[in-house]
Amino acid sequence: MICTVDETALTARTYGLGMRAEDIVEDFPVVRTDSPALDAVRMVADQRLPGLMVTDTSGKPYAVLAAADLLRFILPRYVQDDPSLAGVLGSSTAGHAADNLRGKTIADLLPKHLTHVPVAKAADGTIAVAAEMLQVRSPLIAVTKDGKLHGVITASRLLAAALES
Amino acid sequence: MICTVDETALTARTYGLGMRAEDIVEDFPVVRTDSPALDAVRMVADQRLPGLMVTDTSGKPYAVLAAADLLRFILPRYVQDDPSLAGVLGSSTAGHAADNLRGKTIADLLPKHLTHVPVAKAADGTIAVAAEMLQVRSPLIAVTKDGKLHGVITASRLLAAALES
Repeated sequence: MICTVDETALTARTYGLGMRAEDIVEDFPVVRTDSPALDAVRMVADQRLPGLMVTDTSGKPYAVLAAADLLRFILPRYVQDDPSLAGVLGSSTAGHAADNLRGKTIADLLPKHLTHVPVAKAADGTIAVAAEMLQVRSPLIAVTKDGKLHGVITASRLLAAALES
Repeated sequence: MICTVDETALTARTYGLGMRAEDIVEDFPVVRTDSPALDAVRMVADQRLPGLMVTDTSGKPYAVLAAADLLRFILPRYVQDDPSLAGVLGSSTAGHAADNLRGKTIADLLPKHLTHVPVAKAADGTIAVAAEMLQVRSPLIAVTKDGKLHGVITASRLLAAALES
């Protein structure tokens, strides 16, 4: 008697962490380095996004900014320079948060020397994706195919995939 | 001629960053250190939450776990110990992510020595709240009144408040 293994059936029975990055990419808004900064931050605020996925003008992943990272850009300059002043000075100096962003592009906000951008390949296993996101504590990871952005995975989506049985 | 200033009208005209923490707290689910870990992680996954707000059994803020932090607990133990193994070993070893969490409480997952828990007082200005969240790159902050958790503010909610004119 010859036993044959139905590979497709086996795959279907593996758990969420057995899937590949391209199986769980999400519909997630993406901005470019030359996108208006105010619109991008407003989008994160309005859609309650966990962060911002930024590509360069060729569509290559360039930066991931967590929602908390974006708080820097709505703070008055004196608090950005010295956060300990935040509690000392009154709210009367708050000014218009939107004014800090108006007329600027995403590239204007980003530091000159970017930190590590979390990226996975479309064929990467979700364990590798989770390990990468965990290491940089990123709420988002870029999924690439042929060097271009293929999709985005959020940490909560990855948790959901992992818990699917 | 005596000029009187209508303080209420002035306050109403200040921008989002001129508000206080208690003005913008959100309806956000909270778990306790003795809550079941699997239910908590499933809640973050299902509701696409940016993270988990944990109090101790007396209602005092105890920990904030970003969604990305939670990925640690659904990874196989060998990847937790050495993330570089994530890409080397196949997905067949993934096992059941939920099994890593079943029967455990939140307290079982938390490190023995907790890192800084982001907390603001109800009367703190939103600039101070934003500065605190930015410093620890936290997607959530606990807002306390009389030492107890009064509410939660997410980074995206704070961005929205700051951009309100």
